[in-house]
Amino acid sequence: PKAKIVKLLDVADLGKPISDIYPHLKRHCDVKLTSASSETRFNNVDIVFFATPDGVGQKEAQAWLDHGVKVIDYSGDFRFSNAKTYSGYANRLNLNPTHLSPHLLKQSSYGIPELHRKQIAKANIVGNPGCFAVACTLGLAPAVKRNLINVNRIICDCKTGVSGAGKKPGPGFHYPARYEAVNAYRISGHQHVYEIENELSALAKKNIKITFTPHVVPMTRGILATLYAPLDKKTTIKKLLDAYKNFYKDERFVQVIGPEESATSTDVRGSNSVKIWVNADDRTGNAIIVSHIDNLVKGQAGSAVQNMNIMMGLKEDLGLNTPGIYP
Amino acid sequence: PKAKIVKLLDVADLGKPISDIYPHLKRHCDVKLTSASSETRFNNVDIVFFATPDGVGQKEAQAWLDHGVKVIDYSGDFRFSNAKTYSGYANRLNLNPTHLSPHLLKQSSYGIPELHRKQIAKANIVGNPGCFAVACTLGLAPAVKRNLINVNRIICDCKTGVSGAGKKPGPGFHYPARYEAVNAYRISGHQHVYEIENELSALAKKNIKITFTPHVVPMTRGILATLYAPLDKKTTIKKLLDAYKNFYKDERFVQVIGPEESATSTDVRGSNSVKIWVNADDRTGNAIIVSHIDNLVKGQAGSAVQNMNIMMGLKEDLGLNTPGIYP
Amino acid sequence: PKAKIVKLLDVADLGKPISDIYPHLKRHCDVKLTSASSETRFNNVDIVFFATPDGVGQKEAQAWLDHGVKVIDYSGDFRFSNAKTYSGYANRLNLNPTHLSPHLLKQSSYGIPELHRKQIAKANIVGNPGCFAVACTLGLAPAVKRNLINVNRIICDCKTGVSGAGKKPGPGFHYPARYEAVNAYRISGHQHVYEIENELSALAKKNIKITFTPHVVPMTRGILATLYAPLDKKTTIKKLLDAYKNFYKDERFVQVIGPEESATSTDVRGSNSVKIWVNADDRTGNAIIVSHIDNLVKGQAGSAVQNMNIMMGLKEDLGLNTPGIYP
Amino acid sequence: PKAKIVKLLDVADLGKPISDIYPHLKRHCDVKLTSASSETRFNNVDIVFFATPDGVGQKEAQAWLDHGVKVIDYSGDFRFSNAKTYSGYANRLNLNPTHLSPHLLKQSSYGIPELHRKQIAKANIVGNPGCFAVACTLGLAPAVKRNLINVNRIICDCKTGVSGAGKKPGPGFHYPARYEAVNAYRISGHQHVYEIENELSALAKKNIKITFTPHVVPMTRGILATLYAPLDKKTTIKKLLDAYKNFYKDERFVQVIGPEESATSTDVRGSNSVKIWVNADDRTGNAIIVSHIDNLVKGQAGSAVQNMNIMMGLKEDLGLNTPGIYP
Repeated sequence: PKAKIVKLLDVADLGKPISDIYPHLKRHCDVKLTSASSETRFNNVDIVFFATPDGVGQKEAQAWLDHGVKVIDYSGDFRFSNAKTYSGYANRLNLNPTHLSPHLLKQSSYGIPELHRKQIAKANIVGNPGCFAVACTLGLAPAVKRNLINVNRIICDCKTGVSGAGKKPGPGFHYPARYEAVNAYRISGHQHVYEIENELSALAKKNIKITFTPHVVPMTRGILATLYAPLDKKTTIKKLLDAYKNFYKDERFVQVIGPEESATSTDVRGSNSVKIWVNADDRTGNAIIVSHIDNLVKGQAGSAVQNMNIMMGLKEDLGLNTPGIYP
Repeated sequence: PKAKIVKLLDVADLGKPISDIYPHLKRHCDVKLTSASSETRFNNVDIVFFATPDGVGQKEAQAWLDHGVKVIDYSGDFRFSNAKTYSGYANRLNLNPTHLSPHLLKQSSYGIPELHRKQIAKANIVGNPGCFAVACTLGLAPAVKRNLINVNRIICDCKTGVSGAGKKPGPGFHYPARYEAVNAYRISGHQHVYEIENELSALAKKNIKITFTPHVVPMTRGILATLYAPLDKKTTIKKLLDAYKNFYKDERFVQVIGPEESATSTDVRGSNSVKIWVNADDRTGNAIIVSHIDNLVKGQAGSAVQNMNIMMGLKEDLGLNTPGIYP
Repeated sequence: PKAKIVKLLDVADLGKPISDIYPHLKRHCDVKLTSASSETRFNNVDIVFFATPDGVGQKEAQAWLDHGVKVIDYSGDFRFSNAKTYSGYANRLNLNPTHLSPHLLKQSSYGIPELHRKQIAKANIVGNPGCFAVACTLGLAPAVKRNLINVNRIICDCKTGVSGAGKKPGPGFHYPARYEAVNAYRISGHQHVYEIENELSALAKKNIKITFTPHVVPMTRGILATLYAPLDKKTTIKKLLDAYKNFYKDERFVQVIGPEESATSTDVRGSNSVKIWVNADDRTGNAIIVSHIDNLVKGQAGSAVQNMNIMMGLKEDLGLNTPGIYP
Repeated sequence: PKAKIVKLLDVADLGKPISDIYPHLKRHCDVKLTSASSETRFNNVDIVFFATPDGVGQKEAQAWLDHGVKVIDYSGDFRFSNAKTYSGYANRLNLNPTHLSPHLLKQSSYGIPELHRKQIAKANIVGNPGCFAVACTLGLAPAVKRNLINVNRIICDCKTGVSGAGKKPGPGFHYPARYEAVNAYRISGHQHVYEIENELSALAKKNIKITFTPHVVPMTRGILATLYAPLDKKTTIKKLLDAYKNFYKDERFVQVIGPEESATSTDVRGSNSVKIWVNADDRTGNAIIVSHIDNLVKGQAGSAVQNMNIMMGLKEDLGLNTPGIYP
């Protein structure tokens, strides 16, 4: 409610209203696309969102900052606090490992407000987190921070809707190929692993490596992350659950439930919520945490709006205080 | 091709052709339903399939055997080799823990042909396996049998299509509630855990407990089981993969692939195949095995036909030697 | 924004927060269910929504009016302006043909604001329209009113998402039965036909009968109505399109497009919009109008909110001025 | 069972087994792709299937005939009996209107066996019909042939699954864009209209033009065609239904049902059946015929196999005598 979309910058379809491309926006947002390289692009802008691939933000951000504009970047460009950590990430993705604006990393913050709220409030740049990273990091943070699990044996088994792959058509996302198909992919090689490990390591104050398997399931929105780790021997399910409830007790967007309840991805669909279902298997001693988000909201655009609110000194839940859509 | 459906027994809809209930069978199978308690039900029958809940088979099987008819049972009634093991299973499900026909358990076999072919050939009764059990047990058997993983830390993260819940409508399977929903359920409490542990323990010759989390994903057919366990330190991915290929080298219905390939549930949809994708994460030392079946074929009716062929001395792949359906 | 849900009345689940039944509402609406027969049910209420079956509203409405509460009813109870028309409707549905509160029909209005705005503003009771009726009536109104088609040969071929059947599970809406199934049903016998004919007849000032075939398609939300009628010989596509654009030129929620554009049900999904795509086949002389709504919004709850705004003297688009959800 | 796939010809992926491209075929059909321009392509072949775009078959067919090989073509190339009719079709699609092998049209037959069985048996070339054409032509043939409807006012409202658009990914078939979307397209301009009109005109012995609107619904397989036409005044629903039953009484693959029954696209999914549901609306005098096929079987490959059986003098239902898949 306090924000206004003043410009939509692109490199194609210039002059077209965005509602020609996304007809559901007709009469709601008919702003025309203008050139991302226009010299007047900075005018009347307080904050810019880079919904661009890795590498673009680090090239362009300084010019926006020079015009007094804050930056939220959706790629991996500003998710890491120093050039060395970034290069580890970049190497894994076969990107150029040398960050183009390493000096900006000091002014930037990783964009999970529940863990970095103060830093985001002061940052000029926020690296908006990856969708799997939001689900896994928030799902594990209390247990890792409070030292309640064996952090050397964390397994993240993730299920994502198809929209996580973006809007570009491809054979694996063609309706007839996808409608009845569930598949694992990039086993242990997904790009979000690095930022999850980075965050968990910071919380645990030790180096953590996780086993991470993403799966695509035949639905459009949603991530469900099933997180396994051996529970500390002295930790009961009650203590574990209390730790989660306590850790998130002031968080508007995080719900914690225990074993006697249940959850499904549609509980958070279309909303900025994270729903964390805390379980433990006393036969095998494993904690089993199930974390649910909408990958397009808390997993991307919703987190970005939440970050914008914090960066601009607005009430954190503005524009986000709505239930999801159901059914 | 060598079997003929001579009767379809039921307790309701008596007199109706099965094709009135399942219209896709019209002109293919128009056999009328007759009473399951008719005195002539045994006539002209060589083998009977009990597609009935727990408890029915153990009550009725003896009468069929007395008439020289072999039995395949779809419930847990004949999945265990002695009354004690059965009572462990029954207790977990809040069933009567006292098996009604314990003497029959000696004549019966568990119905995974790849592991019990000889026993099935001699058995008068086969306990057809649970769908998750087929996917997990076949996905883990070579590693467990060859002692290549730490069997104390096995995690089975399973994804099933909705048909696994049967044909009875319920709120969680109503189309609008289900179409975008993925959810975990019965965390560590699923009824198939017991038979998986029973089989793996026999293979390992030690008592094994597994962590098992089933999930429902919004599709109709298919199970994908993602299986994790720490790989033995001296075991490379090559050795692991070779062990799987070797273990299943003569199996008509099992395909094994390695990390450089990929798989999806539709590769086996509508067919009696199991596709096992063998991976290892050298960063964390975990084996990651992904096992794919069609829950309605290899996970139920296909296995039953395969068992029938073995029990009746027929070629094992009769009626099953067809590709699945795609797309 | 100007409305507050003060009570949720039900006959079951009393005492439960609505968010226990619909978990996506957690923290957004946690109002507890109270008894629909409580004596205090009228207190602090300005307007009540009856989301009840045929027959309930006509029994209960008077008591609410007596307490100064306006009424919006979702059933057929107040969709007709006199007892005789109602009995025609009721007969077709095998309901009691005698309306229980015929005197209230004079104070009530049919709830399509684009056609009855003034009457709704003055009404104490509004009969919220059927979902198919919204799509078909608005899709045909300009052509019928302006006398541009042969009204004796109208064919309405409708496709609806599954949510149109309500939240009660049934065999035809069980996910495995529905996911690949499109089917026609109640051919020429659907209950909404009567109100469409009633409205069109009023517009044409003559008695109109339509051919109407509803179909269920495997999706959750949305109605697409393909409407056919012979175009008046002197009417060109340009004239037809202009008539539609002119008819709806001041309507916030109606979009009209011509043959050179295109439309899909997702253009209006989750929003209160109606999108009408005007075409004509010059080879056969038929007008082909395709009308799109979200059956749960403009087809039900959205129209109800729009009617409430009008009845309470509020700005008509309050709470409705948001785009739908996509994807 | 009497046919063997000896070669799979392509212009790409040469040397690859087809099961690399369609993994569900692994171990069922591992034939390698060979060049469509290889000089030895004719060897050991009795019949060739051209699953190629418009224009290829008419260029290549003669060479195959010269080698004694019969031809089934999936495009529009051989669906018309003379060059003039073909040019009408080609003009509508902006193809070259001059058929490249007009002399072959005399040896060819249109490939709907229920209407052209004798001609197909003698033909060297069969033009396999379009999917919509199968559903509409068979759904209308008895009424048109017996003169029971007003053929000048036929309306075909068709709903197709996404696989009708082929396997090439595109924005409209991307899972997130398609999963909740129903849309009309090519209103009155679809390429199959021409062959439907051609067939119906031959049956009626007069020139017929139809109104035809195709829609895509969010499912993979299946076509449901809802066919409207004013019923001849003296024709009752009983007479209409009898005419259909009589017309198709010897047809293995056609099922006719009346108003008191019901049907859905899954009744024929995966099978070569056509299910025709005959209705009439006595309020408006329209016949309403609902015709159901699987677009990939009776709508394409199944019809091709049926035609092959007829052309080769085999039993017509060989390889097709199986129920579909359900659920």
